[in-house]
Amino acid sequence: MSQLRSTLEFLLYDWLHAESLTARTRYADHSRETFDAVLDTCERIAREKYAPFNRTVDTQEPTFDGEKVIQPACTGEARKAYADSGMLSAAQPYEQGGMQLPYMVEAAANSFFACASISIGSNLLTVGNANLLRVHGTPMQQQVFADNEFNGRWAGTMALSEPQAGSSLSDIATRAEPDGADFEADPLGARYRLKGNKMWISSGDHELTENIVHLVLAKIPGPDGKLIPGVKGISLFIVPKKLVDTAGNLTGERNDVALAGLNHKLGWRGTTNTLLNFGEGKYPVRGGAGAIGYLVGKPHEGLKCMFHMMNEARIGIGMAATMLGLAGYYASLDYAKNRPQGRPMSEGGKDASSPQVAIIEHADVKRMLLAQKAYCEGALALNMYCAKLVDEGRTGNTEEAARAKLLLEVLTPIAKSWPSENCLEANSLAIQIHGGYGYTRDFPVEQYWRDNRLNMIHEGTHGIQAADLLGRKVVMQGGAGLQLLAATIQASIDKAAAVPALAAYAQDLGKALHAVQAATQAAWATSNPQEALANAVPYMQAFGHTVLAWVWLEQALTVQAQDAALSVAANAGRMGALAYFYHYELPKTAAWLRVVSARDMTCAHMPLDAF
Amino acid sequence: MSQLRSTLEFLLYDWLHAESLTARTRYADHSRETFDAVLDTCERIAREKYAPFNRTVDTQEPTFDGEKVIQPACTGEARKAYADSGMLSAAQPYEQGGMQLPYMVEAAANSFFACASISIGSNLLTVGNANLLRVHGTPMQQQVFADNEFNGRWAGTMALSEPQAGSSLSDIATRAEPDGADFEADPLGARYRLKGNKMWISSGDHELTENIVHLVLAKIPGPDGKLIPGVKGISLFIVPKKLVDTAGNLTGERNDVALAGLNHKLGWRGTTNTLLNFGEGKYPVRGGAGAIGYLVGKPHEGLKCMFHMMNEARIGIGMAATMLGLAGYYASLDYAKNRPQGRPMSEGGKDASSPQVAIIEHADVKRMLLAQKAYCEGALALNMYCAKLVDEGRTGNTEEAARAKLLLEVLTPIAKSWPSENCLEANSLAIQIHGGYGYTRDFPVEQYWRDNRLNMIHEGTHGIQAADLLGRKVVMQGGAGLQLLAATIQASIDKAAAVPALAAYAQDLGKALHAVQAATQAAWATSNPQEALANAVPYMQAFGHTVLAWVWLEQALTVQAQDAALSVAANAGRMGALAYFYHYELPKTAAWLRVVSARDMTCAHMPLDAF
Repeated sequence: MSQLRSTLEFLLYDWLHAESLTARTRYADHSRETFDAVLDTCERIAREKYAPFNRTVDTQEPTFDGEKVIQPACTGEARKAYADSGMLSAAQPYEQGGMQLPYMVEAAANSFFACASISIGSNLLTVGNANLLRVHGTPMQQQVFADNEFNGRWAGTMALSEPQAGSSLSDIATRAEPDGADFEADPLGARYRLKGNKMWISSGDHELTENIVHLVLAKIPGPDGKLIPGVKGISLFIVPKKLVDTAGNLTGERNDVALAGLNHKLGWRGTTNTLLNFGEGKYPVRGGAGAIGYLVGKPHEGLKCMFHMMNEARIGIGMAATMLGLAGYYASLDYAKNRPQGRPMSEGGKDASSPQVAIIEHADVKRMLLAQKAYCEGALALNMYCAKLVDEGRTGNTEEAARAKLLLEVLTPIAKSWPSENCLEANSLAIQIHGGYGYTRDFPVEQYWRDNRLNMIHEGTHGIQAADLLGRKVVMQGGAGLQLLAATIQASIDKAAAVPALAAYAQDLGKALHAVQAATQAAWATSNPQEALANAVPYMQAFGHTVLAWVWLEQALTVQAQDAALSVAANAGRMGALAYFYHYELPKTAAWLRVVSARDMTCAHMPLDAF
Repeated sequence: MSQLRSTLEFLLYDWLHAESLTARTRYADHSRETFDAVLDTCERIAREKYAPFNRTVDTQEPTFDGEKVIQPACTGEARKAYADSGMLSAAQPYEQGGMQLPYMVEAAANSFFACASISIGSNLLTVGNANLLRVHGTPMQQQVFADNEFNGRWAGTMALSEPQAGSSLSDIATRAEPDGADFEADPLGARYRLKGNKMWISSGDHELTENIVHLVLAKIPGPDGKLIPGVKGISLFIVPKKLVDTAGNLTGERNDVALAGLNHKLGWRGTTNTLLNFGEGKYPVRGGAGAIGYLVGKPHEGLKCMFHMMNEARIGIGMAATMLGLAGYYASLDYAKNRPQGRPMSEGGKDASSPQVAIIEHADVKRMLLAQKAYCEGALALNMYCAKLVDEGRTGNTEEAARAKLLLEVLTPIAKSWPSENCLEANSLAIQIHGGYGYTRDFPVEQYWRDNRLNMIHEGTHGIQAADLLGRKVVMQGGAGLQLLAATIQASIDKAAAVPALAAYAQDLGKALHAVQAATQAAWATSNPQEALANAVPYMQAFGHTVLAWVWLEQALTVQAQDAALSVAANAGRMGALAYFYHYELPKTAAWLRVVSARDMTCAHMPLDAF
């Protein structure tokens, strides 16, 4: 973890100038010392309560005895240590018991838990859930539900998908009907009765907290009793597992939310993933039918509210993928340094009588390590940059905030998708470096690879991120987001062009950026979304590689500006990763953009019976 | 499996003219009817005895009670059905109880088992072991050991790796010392006593057969008692688990080969993978120390003998990877046709009130299906082509045979590595198409992905294949192998250039071939293996993609020559896969070759402390 710490410090302080945030009113009481103290605490808890149990939660998968979910004790202990640290409310204002910490520092601190054990989890859904209520909930909803999530008493979920509607939220069929004539008079919010099934709900049931606050998407029927088709009909509800009063006390009534089953996953087994039945009658409550839920925001505006939480979740997923990638990198680096095997290639061939060397001496092992470093440290840098945009959006002046929010909108699909794909590949390389040992459960890398495979699926699949990027983000507001990103990248190119060690990279990035812009135009040249989006994923891959190349160039600018005596080895590593990325990775963008620019319909026009 | 069958028939009969082999003396009694009968039988056994138990062998991993390995009953039943089918000796001559079947047909028939359950296994190691003895064993060794492997009584292994020497065979430390003064007089072969540990031995112990025949690499000490460094000191031994007499009867003596442990793997769990102790004293035998082994071939020539088996094994691994890929393709195709979700993109946007469509209607799902099809059917075609080369090498005239053997030498690293990498990616796409369901153990695709991850590791890692290709295969005999492959590819290009529907592809392939040749020269321009091999893996990736593009063009030539009314949908599928491969995949070669041609030393020169 010490390598992660120094990488984070470079990104936070040297590159992104986290300390400059202390000039803002909200963060005025902070300093590098207080930031570091948070990092220290999280690093320690992650080392003591998370890392030792990562394999335990994989092998002791949660089970359900019909009433309760059973998990190993370490899960609860890790959860308690996390909640006790105050990290759940790290970003909340002092008057609400928070630390008023910048998001950058919160995200950096949380990365230690993700690196130590992603599947034990650092409760990001609970924080995201409570944050959503801070924005869209009534004062009472905030006090009762959000406050008790931030203080660690209760956990939170987001319940969107249904068995018949995974990615297609417009097709959800969970119904919410007003609960009695006085339904609007409930102090906790307009009260409804919900009936339906929700699938893929992470942390949907467990015994880790006193209560669970589900945020549920459902449809309120129209006057004809029918559900409104499409996303317009969707509303958002708080559905607690156990009912509570306005003081936040449990009333002793179990709400009609029943665990229908646990999903048995390929990985990420420390976190329950559930099928939940709402209002199916297992726990009848208050003499009516249906689970009791309280409307959040206005009727039919549920998806808009939920997107607030989803964007945060997407950046969180990118971070999760990144940390799994880094965990594999550190493990394989350690293995490569300590495993003797073979002899280095030399001009005169190999001398079999010489002793074996550590495998890190072999060029191909170095290639696999450097690829992991370039992918994962690059992804971490991107995630930290996005975190800084969150802070700018919250505390910058009007113009800065608007700029940061727009940039973040464009970058979110990349921050989610790029690490999910490339840090998974990094995990595969970590296995490869271990050879046969990497294929056994005696080493941690196979689990990282399994855990990481989820990230291209949840919180919007790869395909959905790509459609969001090419179909919405780069064309919205007349392309303002893409223009802003391009201008931001161009500014880095201009700076780097003046630095001799970076000029060639600057030129390569300029070409790649131009190619992405040209491909965007070519994709939409016929204004036909069928043609434009036929190759949205290759577009996203090329776009992502270009963004990552930029992020590496940005880091290199910081390296070049530093005293040459500073962090010699670490900075040599950064320059090596930069070179790797530009020599080995960036050239791939040409192949991806080719089909985008040509609006290649080979796949889209494939007859169904020809597969 | 019916889709696999028709794909195999296209490759075997329409493209590779398997029937023409019946003109050769060895195969004169065969006909398409006899070939088809073998395919029928294997397809049926695979469907009945393998496919239903693929998940069983994954969840009921082998265990060791200290004396015996315990596996689910289905493993033994599948093994018995396979042996009873006669497939173990399919290629053997009639007089030795075989079917005298061409290797092409044997490989095609075995593919059904691999597709149904790779990890139950179709005993390729046993066949490879016995085939090695056919070539290098004495008549008595063949009669006692090989014959009893071919007839199904005993199983075989290859025992090369050791815990301290996985890929580096020159460092094996297993010792073999002459067993008494009369050691050379044993009718089973010169008798030695072996001591050492062997790691990663597949099927190294089990109760599936009466006996297990280990082929073991070990070193005979020199006069000074020391082991000769390097591969030159390696000899090959038959070490049976239980001792036998010259009539092939068990003598009742257990040899000193002890199971030290089972490896707990990420996948491929139906096959035991073992750490074996030879001669450590658990089963003292005949009053001496060490496991009894019989020399095969001459002393110090063991590795050469073993390579005979390894080459066959490498093609077998390519086939295994391919069939896992195809199994995932078929599963995800079936899912995509039957899972309703979302609505197609149309020029006017989406109509939320229309019913959901099957996800195969979505362009990105089609892309993921077509990629799988192009990877896996392409890999199958390459494997079948290599199988044909085996037949040519065995039964062609002198010139044909020499040509086939040389071509096979060059193609073997591709036949092993390309499917291992790309059909693994296909399995990942199969998961992606299933969405969250693909991440659960309720669907088969996650297991295919786990099982397939092994193929880049065993029988020579990806890095070793790449070093073999660029360091040996394309430069041996003054580059004769590469020239032969290039001429073979050029002949296809010339043919395709004359077919209007294929001319553009022919041109693209010509450019790619030229780029590979130029990169080969550039890599070796300084005659420095450190520089040449620094980017051997990217070279192999580009080389492989070029070979696969050629294999697709070859198939397309067959399609174009067929009656247009024939197999309309299947041939449209082949043309779609061809277009996919040339538009989406072949352009990637430029990025890979760039670093090869530049002899890029970014990775090789990375300081160790900079990672």
